[in-house]
Amino acid sequence: MTTDGPALRNVLGIEDLERYDIESILDSASAFREIMGRHIKKVPTLRGRLVVNLFFEPSTRTRTSFEIAGKMLSADVVNFSASASSLGKGETLLDTARSIEAMHPDVVVVRSASAGVPWMLAKALGAAVVNAGDGAHEHPSQALLDAFTLRERWRSLDERTIAIVGDITHSRVAGSGIRCFSKLGAKVRVCGPPTMIPPGIGKLGRVTVHHQVEDALRGADAVMMLRIQRERLTEPLFPTDREYSRRFGLSPARAELLARDGLILHPGPLNRGVEIDPAVADGPRSVILHQVENGVAVRMALLYLTAGGTRAEVARAATA
Amino acid sequence: MTTDGPALRNVLGIEDLERYDIESILDSASAFREIMGRHIKKVPTLRGRLVVNLFFEPSTRTRTSFEIAGKMLSADVVNFSASASSLGKGETLLDTARSIEAMHPDVVVVRSASAGVPWMLAKALGAAVVNAGDGAHEHPSQALLDAFTLRERWRSLDERTIAIVGDITHSRVAGSGIRCFSKLGAKVRVCGPPTMIPPGIGKLGRVTVHHQVEDALRGADAVMMLRIQRERLTEPLFPTDREYSRRFGLSPARAELLARDGLILHPGPLNRGVEIDPAVADGPRSVILHQVENGVAVRMALLYLTAGGTRAEVARAATA
Amino acid sequence: MTTDGPALRNVLGIEDLERYDIESILDSASAFREIMGRHIKKVPTLRGRLVVNLFFEPSTRTRTSFEIAGKMLSADVVNFSASASSLGKGETLLDTARSIEAMHPDVVVVRSASAGVPWMLAKALGAAVVNAGDGAHEHPSQALLDAFTLRERWRSLDERTIAIVGDITHSRVAGSGIRCFSKLGAKVRVCGPPTMIPPGIGKLGRVTVHHQVEDALRGADAVMMLRIQRERLTEPLFPTDREYSRRFGLSPARAELLARDGLILHPGPLNRGVEIDPAVADGPRSVILHQVENGVAVRMALLYLTAGGTRAEVARAATA
Repeated sequence: MTTDGPALRNVLGIEDLERYDIESILDSASAFREIMGRHIKKVPTLRGRLVVNLFFEPSTRTRTSFEIAGKMLSADVVNFSASASSLGKGETLLDTARSIEAMHPDVVVVRSASAGVPWMLAKALGAAVVNAGDGAHEHPSQALLDAFTLRERWRSLDERTIAIVGDITHSRVAGSGIRCFSKLGAKVRVCGPPTMIPPGIGKLGRVTVHHQVEDALRGADAVMMLRIQRERLTEPLFPTDREYSRRFGLSPARAELLARDGLILHPGPLNRGVEIDPAVADGPRSVILHQVENGVAVRMALLYLTAGGTRAEVARAATA
Repeated sequence: MTTDGPALRNVLGIEDLERYDIESILDSASAFREIMGRHIKKVPTLRGRLVVNLFFEPSTRTRTSFEIAGKMLSADVVNFSASASSLGKGETLLDTARSIEAMHPDVVVVRSASAGVPWMLAKALGAAVVNAGDGAHEHPSQALLDAFTLRERWRSLDERTIAIVGDITHSRVAGSGIRCFSKLGAKVRVCGPPTMIPPGIGKLGRVTVHHQVEDALRGADAVMMLRIQRERLTEPLFPTDREYSRRFGLSPARAELLARDGLILHPGPLNRGVEIDPAVADGPRSVILHQVENGVAVRMALLYLTAGGTRAEVARAATA
Repeated sequence: MTTDGPALRNVLGIEDLERYDIESILDSASAFREIMGRHIKKVPTLRGRLVVNLFFEPSTRTRTSFEIAGKMLSADVVNFSASASSLGKGETLLDTARSIEAMHPDVVVVRSASAGVPWMLAKALGAAVVNAGDGAHEHPSQALLDAFTLRERWRSLDERTIAIVGDITHSRVAGSGIRCFSKLGAKVRVCGPPTMIPPGIGKLGRVTVHHQVEDALRGADAVMMLRIQRERLTEPLFPTDREYSRRFGLSPARAELLARDGLILHPGPLNRGVEIDPAVADGPRSVILHQVENGVAVRMALLYLTAGGTRAEVARAATA
């Protein structure tokens, strides 16, 4: 039966997923999303399973979202922050991961500063690996929660237009978003200063490149504003926050260029007044907090599916 | 029925609580205190509820006490340390809190370096907010555990005299203690060098001000010695620990000035030999470790009541 | 009945344990080891019991192993990292521990930079104390997991020869290993540069001292390679990693000197290419990852036995 497909082995990047995989993850997340609204926000689905958050780079928000997702499924969740640990003593990242695996986790959620680490670990480990962000490469759970949030409003992303504005080159959120939205049938416009858009971006999906933010926004169904990393604002082009904001920031006037009911996304944390105006971030079109909320449901789905659950059982798991 | 009053919406400061509220929290804590002595120290009361310790300032002890309290009630407890997190990336404190709230916590326990933050969050969030210390302003769970500890010995604080000695100006423990003890009918004597007693202290409760520690101690039923923060000992008045100890420290001889069976409290951590002599800290009148112990029970009560429990159900919850 | 001996009061060091104690811990660990292979890796044995990891020195790996062990037994586990805490505010280590104890833990797992701290705490506290490493003195759970791993292959350590190579003076792993292997009937060869072997080492067990690594390895049934701490490589003797490796590192050729089927252990984290060649670390004789795996089972046994379980009940506990 097509509805009873196998569980996911790993979730490394959107680049490895077919449209069918993405849609079945989002369907599973819908089932789990409902649990979050209950008085008793917990199902016994993953009781006795072990999830390790193996973070080689600090990220309290993503780690917390995975931790809450695991606990709502009754998994045991252990946080292993490798910065404070053996890496400082000269151990290789792979040895750290192998040591963790020897403790019998069912799922290892990995965040690393270097691109490709989750793939390397997935090859070396028997446990399922979920990528929680690898360098400037992929951040699949973010793209999935973005897609979930859009699909919640639109039912389908097919032929929708989604703009992504900011430092595309250094953003794993953009990388996974472009791949995910494209696979779900959307058209993606990327926009930023030329130094912040990598050559070959078109290979990631159905992408067009823009350098004027107005061009990217006009008529788009949604825009994802990327967080500008202040440490990158030292180049001659953007000596200050103010200059970046003037050229690329999402002001109320610019938000008006979007299609009617055009949605505003941001992966957080926000730099209010830099890439996004507070009035826009807190306005009626903003779905920023829904993204965070849906992130827990999407991560429940990822943990459930990689820990061995099958798609056919999701409905039962979510009502247990 | 008056015994079936509504649960607490938030616990922000003693300043917002009526005597009746305080007493019912302490009564609830008595019921939960008993659980701590059991072989199986856990009741299912808050199973499937989520408590987030949102700490914008490090505090391992208070965080641990709330964490243990939550776990004894079977809640899921997640620690979110904002110093290691998004605040470093330019996010506002309110955005951090909103993101946490989007993950559906029932209770957010917040510690911050700035006064007023818990009130601001309570206005902005739908989740219950419990203040775990805001700047030099309030630390209500500390005052409640102090009152619990005194009531355990005295049955009532009515017309008791309680001295608080140290840096009153910068102490949230003093701020909440004065309010709490006064509301429960006690008289409070504050004592410290003039620079460490704020003008207008009398507005907080039934307070008298003393500058000689002997005057504050003589005949008092209890004394709370505040931890002296060494970083404040740079002013001309107290160039050294030793000088502070000589003028305001609780020596065995000074402890003799208390009423018969007068109790000695300290919020911890102790600076032995500075504000308190080791012989006094470890002596028979000291209830310092009982304060820590009772802190867990008081925090169980706060989590229970803010997560939706009603007063009438406490007895049942504690024996479940 | 001799099989129904009392639970362990504390686990401070191998120096305090009789052969019978060690063997019964290893037998209990065997029972718990089986749980780790199950689909549902959790038994309700320690439900409602509280384990606090009180770490005065950072150690993510050992802390994680104890945390997972506790969770597999359904205990509540709370991590208290004292470096980020009150010690910075001038509190004594003993006061920190007393505060923790006031929160009613059943077991306090303690790691400290100073030798003897677990013994001091065991005297002062009512809770059970398990030593997770004290300075250069003892690391009993490491030695027990090493012994478990060897016994798994050999059935018995009696008359086996085990070499330990590295900085014996500063290694708690060596200290506990020598004691443990000797008590179980093995002969221990220690090997390192003269400055790294303390006088009086022979008092710890059945030890012979070697300065040529070939002498230590020849015919040995197993070798434990100690992690070389790079910060110690500043002395005239070993100005570089390379020089240490040349003199004492375990190369494939040197590994051939071991007895047939001789085993290779390392407590981790590895310095690949310094004390151990990658081909050896990853080779068929290496049991390094089994050590980590067995560490969880051994720590389950330690938590179970100190939290009040009796030896006779282990079999039942492990199949609950």
